[in-house]
Amino acid sequence: MAKDISNLDSFLVESINPIWFGEDSFNQLQNLIEKGKYSKLLFLVDENTHDKCLPYLLQSLSKIPHYEVLEVEPGEESKSAEVLVQLWMALSELKVDRQALMINVGGGMITDLGGFLAGTYLRGIHFVNVPTSLLAMVDASSGGKNGINLQHLKNRVGLFLNPEAVCVIPDFLETLPEQELRSGFAEMLKHGLIADKAYWEELATFDIENEIPTQEMILRSIQIKKEIVEQDFRETGLRKALNFGHTIGHAIETAAMDAEPLMHGEAIALGMIAELYLSEKYTALPPADAEKCANQIRALFRDLEWNCDIDELLQLMQSDKKNKKNQIRFSLLREIGVPEVDVAIGEKGITEALDYLKQKL
Amino acid sequence: MAKDISNLDSFLVESINPIWFGEDSFNQLQNLIEKGKYSKLLFLVDENTHDKCLPYLLQSLSKIPHYEVLEVEPGEESKSAEVLVQLWMALSELKVDRQALMINVGGGMITDLGGFLAGTYLRGIHFVNVPTSLLAMVDASSGGKNGINLQHLKNRVGLFLNPEAVCVIPDFLETLPEQELRSGFAEMLKHGLIADKAYWEELATFDIENEIPTQEMILRSIQIKKEIVEQDFRETGLRKALNFGHTIGHAIETAAMDAEPLMHGEAIALGMIAELYLSEKYTALPPADAEKCANQIRALFRDLEWNCDIDELLQLMQSDKKNKKNQIRFSLLREIGVPEVDVAIGEKGITEALDYLKQKL
Repeated sequence: MAKDISNLDSFLVESINPIWFGEDSFNQLQNLIEKGKYSKLLFLVDENTHDKCLPYLLQSLSKIPHYEVLEVEPGEESKSAEVLVQLWMALSELKVDRQALMINVGGGMITDLGGFLAGTYLRGIHFVNVPTSLLAMVDASSGGKNGINLQHLKNRVGLFLNPEAVCVIPDFLETLPEQELRSGFAEMLKHGLIADKAYWEELATFDIENEIPTQEMILRSIQIKKEIVEQDFRETGLRKALNFGHTIGHAIETAAMDAEPLMHGEAIALGMIAELYLSEKYTALPPADAEKCANQIRALFRDLEWNCDIDELLQLMQSDKKNKKNQIRFSLLREIGVPEVDVAIGEKGITEALDYLKQKL
Repeated sequence: MAKDISNLDSFLVESINPIWFGEDSFNQLQNLIEKGKYSKLLFLVDENTHDKCLPYLLQSLSKIPHYEVLEVEPGEESKSAEVLVQLWMALSELKVDRQALMINVGGGMITDLGGFLAGTYLRGIHFVNVPTSLLAMVDASSGGKNGINLQHLKNRVGLFLNPEAVCVIPDFLETLPEQELRSGFAEMLKHGLIADKAYWEELATFDIENEIPTQEMILRSIQIKKEIVEQDFRETGLRKALNFGHTIGHAIETAAMDAEPLMHGEAIALGMIAELYLSEKYTALPPADAEKCANQIRALFRDLEWNCDIDELLQLMQSDKKNKKNQIRFSLLREIGVPEVDVAIGEKGITEALDYLKQKL
């Protein structure tokens, strides 16, 4: 199913970890498994990817040794300390040793949980990510961040640790519902907004309700993320640009959990609308650009409803892990394609931004 | 109380992490705290080190900002997933951010648990180890290994991660019972056996029942460990030499937990006796050396009793994390001071070694 796009993937060669794409993924993964002489092969999946993705992956590999499958419940709830401890125990019971290879097949929940699991069991075993959602392909599975949530606190615990490789297989996108696709698309929009105006403009008019993003688009997003991460792996500076839309977006996502849950990308889309307002007020993004971008995002997510408590959101932002000394800091835009990080904003400004967002809804 | 030994510590400068020694520790730590501009200072202690060590440390620092203390129960039971999760939650509740500094004050349990805690909370905050037991000074606190146990499986989960620095303050040894001192001394004996015959001979006749090891001895052990770790941080080869005595020793320690618990060093001392036998049989350690060393270790630990089930020990060794593909691998001695790693031995050989150990007891 996947097309050969060898003209586009030269940039992938020197990635923080190899990112294999399309059909090439299968050969490369096969090769890794054969050369690695692993003591054991493990697949971490959720119920959905067990049914919809693992068979296709296994059947696309020409030769596969004996393997074990670890399955968790689908959904963000599995990214918990409780499930992590259960998985540590399961690996122990399977007598998994340091020469094992774990292949995480799933969305961001699986690659986040699986990366942390593999990075800590026996102080680290080999692992590969096979993202199956658009969000995981363009964001979660590469960049080396992994982790779990602590109750409602997202990614409160984890590691910066690269997998051996990431296999991006766009075929899996065909298994996704439209809402899932659009959730991942929000992160692609973010990539355009923080790094590439032309790419943003291409995406802003894309019919995500009816089409699957092209392989070229997916690669462009991976490339933008990769270039940023390679300059600042541990997020001390530039990498924070990737948090555009996320300070408010995470708070919205968390607050929505108790009422009507939003998907990650949906919350980030709303967060970006509010943070476009902040960009206009605090980092001099031209008002016409801020307004136009906000309207375009709203148009792509036109059916989203939201009715949150502004005080609750402020409180949630106070506990965001990117804060320094309890200030609330934002990654904003100076221009479309030009980020500015570490912008400290007080409650008044944030409240105005949330009011602006409310008017847009 | 601590002496200036500046002539000895030049080797510490280029360590994997700085190792500060004696009085110098206090200045260096003070300096780190002042320069680091940390958002929060945290001390992780157990009940014992809270009472016996933390006040001395605080009083030795000339100026200390506001700090928080996290206390866990003393004993290996606190090196558990349950306590780890509680501590993750406690850090969240204290709103600890990425610019915090955690200072782990305690024995190996505290530095292992605290290193893993700090290495994973928010994907890693700064931490310093202040070992208070001899075992932690010469072994656990430096070298970058940390982690927790999963039920009876020691260090099943953890990281390779160096602290910002290790403060070795021999004054703390005066707070230790003799049994604790001797437990740490076993690891020093191991350092001599795997790397330095003259040092081994000095230690083998040392009166550990009545004397505290000298600062020179402690530094020599730290130096041996440091030199090995720097050549092989992730334990793919040479570092395994540090496991001499540990394959059988860990199994003895685990088996003893359910009956009459042994201290780590006590179990390792017994493990070394059995593995001296294996060294004679499998890596050509001269029989006279093997016998003499075994008798010397036994003399230092002459009161130890032990009555374990050989089948149980074999089973426990099967689940040791250093195994490759379910073989049982040992780090042995070719000569006193010369290690050989990755020696695969079958059940028959191990049974003989355990029989030999039984005769020595």
